[in-house]
Amino acid sequence: MNYASFVSADGSPTWGIIADGQAYDLGPSGANLAHTLRAAVEQGIFGTVGEEYRNAPSRAEAVIEFLPAVTDPGKVICIGVNYRSHQEESGKTEQKAPTVFTRFADSQMGHLQPAQMPATTTKFDYEGEVALVISKEAFHVAEEDAFDYVAGYAAYNDLSVRDWQLAASQWIPGKNFPGTGGFGPYLVPAADLGDVNALTLETRVNGDIRQKASVSDLYFTIPQLIAYVTGFTKLSPGDVIVTGTPGGVGLFMEPSGLLSEGDVVEVEITGLGTLKNTVELVS
Amino acid sequence: MNYASFVSADGSPTWGIIADGQAYDLGPSGANLAHTLRAAVEQGIFGTVGEEYRNAPSRAEAVIEFLPAVTDPGKVICIGVNYRSHQEESGKTEQKAPTVFTRFADSQMGHLQPAQMPATTTKFDYEGEVALVISKEAFHVAEEDAFDYVAGYAAYNDLSVRDWQLAASQWIPGKNFPGTGGFGPYLVPAADLGDVNALTLETRVNGDIRQKASVSDLYFTIPQLIAYVTGFTKLSPGDVIVTGTPGGVGLFMEPSGLLSEGDVVEVEITGLGTLKNTVELVS
Repeated sequence: MNYASFVSADGSPTWGIIADGQAYDLGPSGANLAHTLRAAVEQGIFGTVGEEYRNAPSRAEAVIEFLPAVTDPGKVICIGVNYRSHQEESGKTEQKAPTVFTRFADSQMGHLQPAQMPATTTKFDYEGEVALVISKEAFHVAEEDAFDYVAGYAAYNDLSVRDWQLAASQWIPGKNFPGTGGFGPYLVPAADLGDVNALTLETRVNGDIRQKASVSDLYFTIPQLIAYVTGFTKLSPGDVIVTGTPGGVGLFMEPSGLLSEGDVVEVEITGLGTLKNTVELVS
Repeated sequence: MNYASFVSADGSPTWGIIADGQAYDLGPSGANLAHTLRAAVEQGIFGTVGEEYRNAPSRAEAVIEFLPAVTDPGKVICIGVNYRSHQEESGKTEQKAPTVFTRFADSQMGHLQPAQMPATTTKFDYEGEVALVISKEAFHVAEEDAFDYVAGYAAYNDLSVRDWQLAASQWIPGKNFPGTGGFGPYLVPAADLGDVNALTLETRVNGDIRQKASVSDLYFTIPQLIAYVTGFTKLSPGDVIVTGTPGGVGLFMEPSGLLSEGDVVEVEITGLGTLKNTVELVS
């Protein structure tokens, strides 16, 4: 089942289920099962809605405005250099522990919302990734229990302002511009998805394939990431871990594959749909 | 005037003014001028309360439990290697742009609350710093306007779990354990403080002076930091910028000056009071 956050008919943020080309409104402006998708996760509603969703008010998926899959996560934890192919292209093959950085929630945007390239960069880049959303409070989680804490998965584009990312040793500035964290279109319950390691990720720019990898290629696995992250910070329902990008980012292509105004970036993941954002220059 | 966040007589979080050894409750359990100190900043109440605070219910400062000066900042932005003395001891003298990392608000604690040393570290360290709190929405702020966006200042101890900080290139894990961001005791309005560059910072461990610097020694100045940070992310009232630590951290001392259980760490800054936390081992 494809869950999503989107703008309701009355212009307010809501969430619901996308099926058969329709967006069924299960938020405050519709069936009102929970206030937000994050709240639906917290309340155990996410992933358990039955066929009764079809009674909720709906509009065509084609006309709704998507929002970030979770609009208000408390923590967005991102993992760097976590595919061997990206370690090799970036010269970072010695990874003894996960590389962890963060995004503020206000850097995110939804499917089809613009990827905002700031006027202060000459190096705007894509990073297709698999994101997971935490289902319940998680602290000091053992690897063998880790999947119990995953509510669902979504596609993510960790768009990076490379000059600001690499201006100093810490990457935060280049990872937190508004409109650079594409998240969606759907959040799919883990139980509906099957083996996450069987998924394939593909990133395309204007239709050209730039990144292609299996989730099984992750260097630190999803259970290892959850164990490591909850070893230093407590996670809550709706929190996000973005698991890392494979080789093929624009920065290391020859010639450069960095993004320009008007470029269309798609991140497609088996079972999670295609996240599509068009690059827009903002001042 | 010294503002602070603390636990009220009924056990709920509140805020108020500390004067003449008394803590006057201006929050929901007292005069109820605003819900939190962050809200007081947002509503323009912080820094403008007159002598009428003496009519609010009060208790002795000595018996209250301090909370982080701002308990619920949306963003806590930390600056690394921003004093020449710390650049030299860490071998990082080439700083072309500010080094920016982040803390989650739940890593913070108040004056006299324990500094929580996790059982998973052998390298727990102090970093005395000056923190500033943002007064109003700030995006793309020019250096010459930057001080208009500062509500006030506080002492900060950016306690660092060095092994987790340096396990990979990005420092987030070692900077986000619970009970490692000491913040307070007071938040002092910028207007009451005078020239921030005239302040002196001193960090002591069990009474021994470990760090001593003038705020005028900051490599990137406070206006430069505000301009840089608001160049990539929007700041809101109550957000925090922690401006960096001078030389003298325990990691680079010979012999090592890292912290042990029971150590008492104090960060004293002219006009901002003394932030004191005792190291407690937690599992």
